[in-house]
Amino acid sequence: MGSIPTDPTIAEVPLPAKYASLKTDGEHRLTGNDDDKKVREWFIEETKKCGCSITVDAMGNIFAVRPGINNDIPPIGIGSHLDTQPTGGRYDGILGVTTGVEVLKTIHANNITTYAPLAIIDWTNEEGARFPPAMLASGVWGGAFTTEYGQSRTDSDGITLGDELKRIGFLGETPCSYEANPLSAHFEVHIEQGPVLDAAEEAVGVVRGIQSIRWYNIDIVGREAHTGTTPMDRRSDALLGAAQMIVATNKIVTTGELNDRQARATIAVVNSMPQSINTIAGKVKLSLDVRAPADEDVETVDKMCREQFAAIAAENGLTVNIDCFWVSPALHFDPVMVQCVRETTAEMGCNIELVSGAGHDSAYTSKKVPTAMIFVRCRDGVSHNPAEYTRPEDVAASSDALLGAYLRYDDYLRRKTEGKL
Amino acid sequence: MGSIPTDPTIAEVPLPAKYASLKTDGEHRLTGNDDDKKVREWFIEETKKCGCSITVDAMGNIFAVRPGINNDIPPIGIGSHLDTQPTGGRYDGILGVTTGVEVLKTIHANNITTYAPLAIIDWTNEEGARFPPAMLASGVWGGAFTTEYGQSRTDSDGITLGDELKRIGFLGETPCSYEANPLSAHFEVHIEQGPVLDAAEEAVGVVRGIQSIRWYNIDIVGREAHTGTTPMDRRSDALLGAAQMIVATNKIVTTGELNDRQARATIAVVNSMPQSINTIAGKVKLSLDVRAPADEDVETVDKMCREQFAAIAAENGLTVNIDCFWVSPALHFDPVMVQCVRETTAEMGCNIELVSGAGHDSAYTSKKVPTAMIFVRCRDGVSHNPAEYTRPEDVAASSDALLGAYLRYDDYLRRKTEGKL
Repeated sequence: MGSIPTDPTIAEVPLPAKYASLKTDGEHRLTGNDDDKKVREWFIEETKKCGCSITVDAMGNIFAVRPGINNDIPPIGIGSHLDTQPTGGRYDGILGVTTGVEVLKTIHANNITTYAPLAIIDWTNEEGARFPPAMLASGVWGGAFTTEYGQSRTDSDGITLGDELKRIGFLGETPCSYEANPLSAHFEVHIEQGPVLDAAEEAVGVVRGIQSIRWYNIDIVGREAHTGTTPMDRRSDALLGAAQMIVATNKIVTTGELNDRQARATIAVVNSMPQSINTIAGKVKLSLDVRAPADEDVETVDKMCREQFAAIAAENGLTVNIDCFWVSPALHFDPVMVQCVRETTAEMGCNIELVSGAGHDSAYTSKKVPTAMIFVRCRDGVSHNPAEYTRPEDVAASSDALLGAYLRYDDYLRRKTEGKL
Repeated sequence: MGSIPTDPTIAEVPLPAKYASLKTDGEHRLTGNDDDKKVREWFIEETKKCGCSITVDAMGNIFAVRPGINNDIPPIGIGSHLDTQPTGGRYDGILGVTTGVEVLKTIHANNITTYAPLAIIDWTNEEGARFPPAMLASGVWGGAFTTEYGQSRTDSDGITLGDELKRIGFLGETPCSYEANPLSAHFEVHIEQGPVLDAAEEAVGVVRGIQSIRWYNIDIVGREAHTGTTPMDRRSDALLGAAQMIVATNKIVTTGELNDRQARATIAVVNSMPQSINTIAGKVKLSLDVRAPADEDVETVDKMCREQFAAIAAENGLTVNIDCFWVSPALHFDPVMVQCVRETTAEMGCNIELVSGAGHDSAYTSKKVPTAMIFVRCRDGVSHNPAEYTRPEDVAASSDALLGAYLRYDDYLRRKTEGKL
């Protein structure tokens, strides 16, 4: 199987010191813009050459389906997304569709008729960069959102996703639903967007599932006072308390068992009031992002943060309010499909197993159909950045892994359907 | 000497829980607005009643001068400012002018002719709230800024201070300069704007000088990365580093000798980029405000911060840049004048000596003429706030202290001029 064409001028760019020399401002393929239209048309053209029929659903998701031996069962899907961040990289999302197309081409070129039909899928608006939230159209397909909700999402100019899909000719009539337009399974290749495979010098890795995630807003209130006239022991400094909370949060997940179990906790957003160099901050807002492969570890981090934040607030004469506004429990991918990936990557000499730290379209498909993912190493773990890079040989390896895992699962489905398991 | 009239409805407001019940939005006497015009006209009317002639200089400073026995020497000044913060209190600044008027009235009512002439002064735009920087017109008088610079300062609508002074009738022709319009000395009464006198339950305090101050901008650069996919030990988290710096800065001045020597260090402003809950902060900006009565202690805090920030940056894979953009060395008020204040307050049973944490018009006058200040306690140290409050009896005490110190110094000047020291 041939490797996906890559641009050698990008391949040559060293990281990270010379990001500045990169000649591109990155991809700007926001959902529904003209670049999105073009790549969708390319996708349809390429898949049609391999005997696919095209279905576009009410969220603009494109299903390119090549018939199998048994067309009474739903197709096995291979999908990801073609949209990007506003200054996105050349691999995040796109790679999962192009490796799917590569698998399709290889099967077609070799005159293989698979048991189940094969669907290569472009899921609309995974990034959510133009139309929040992220993973919107796979979420509608998986029943997490209604089609009405999805179509009515607006960009910053007030344009709806539905109107923009109509404008570019991709507002389909097929209902966007796992029931109306089902799949037997869903495979997804994605760049790791983290440094584990790169550090281990392995091209691909088995993804066992997606981390448990919780998001919080934290409000800290102290008392504004003059920095020059207020003695240190008579302050209620909201920013000092916030800083102690940031340090404490980091310590919780970098020591002891939680560290061993790969819990992560990050405070990435801070805002202080009143933004005057000589007025002690009276109000501070923080965000908190907690993740771990296991739900119970996220729960432990939650409890420890609440206890320690309360103690810090009391010590500094502050009040603290902790609002957990999003909970996404851990997802565990389908054991049979994961085993198909594992056997294939093992043959390639790659044995690393990971839990995805980020959400993907597979998060929503996994709620309705068996799902698995394959990660590909990306340089330094850099993503959402024009400097995002995966080597041509790793792209080829990911296509190989996908083909092998897919064919193993297609065979499993044949044996299962024929009662031979 | 009578006390300054106060509003009993304000006096009844308890602090701090019931700030919300305060019925006033605070004073809004910004430099050059109609309220400023009115208070200036009141000031001229009152001082004229006591035999004063009025001089308005090119920065709008008003000198109400009552002749003395020896009018060949410049007047002893008593001054502060009548402008306020946008939602200012009823005491910050104003009290220093009204206590001066009270001293003037008392002397006049008792038919006293002082040795030197007496000037009660309203310094324009001390707050700098409408026309930054603060202490602008006393700064021009003291030679820190040119008159051209002062007059051309603009507010947020682009209106210049010069034009606005002209509009309200207070752009005078006397040059704004300690040389053209000299003083023999400068006394100033001001609310403490801090909690020391309130905690000690003393009405007034001797101010020995103004703290040494340095202001810094701190830039911390790390690497943006995905919170979900980036292991804790592979991060360059600029906000974590910033938090450690905030905690370290606080520790430097709250432990050991620096704590004993009343050093203060505050980080009150923080800004992080890119303000996304799931992207590790790549850039953080902090402000740093360092103060101490002694220059060498500020220097020590500076060195310790630089050392510890560098270590924190190295440990977290960050770069840090520390820019000290303002240095204001410690000011020590005139020993003879301070002694005049000390003897007077001691007779009143008040023996606390302070170093001012904030800047005042006296900071600039002290560079050219002997200067001293008297602090009055204010409730809970609250200032720059409608809830700012000083009790009527404390206002009376501050007028008494001012009168006593002023008369002592006037006598000193007589003895000095007559060669009797």
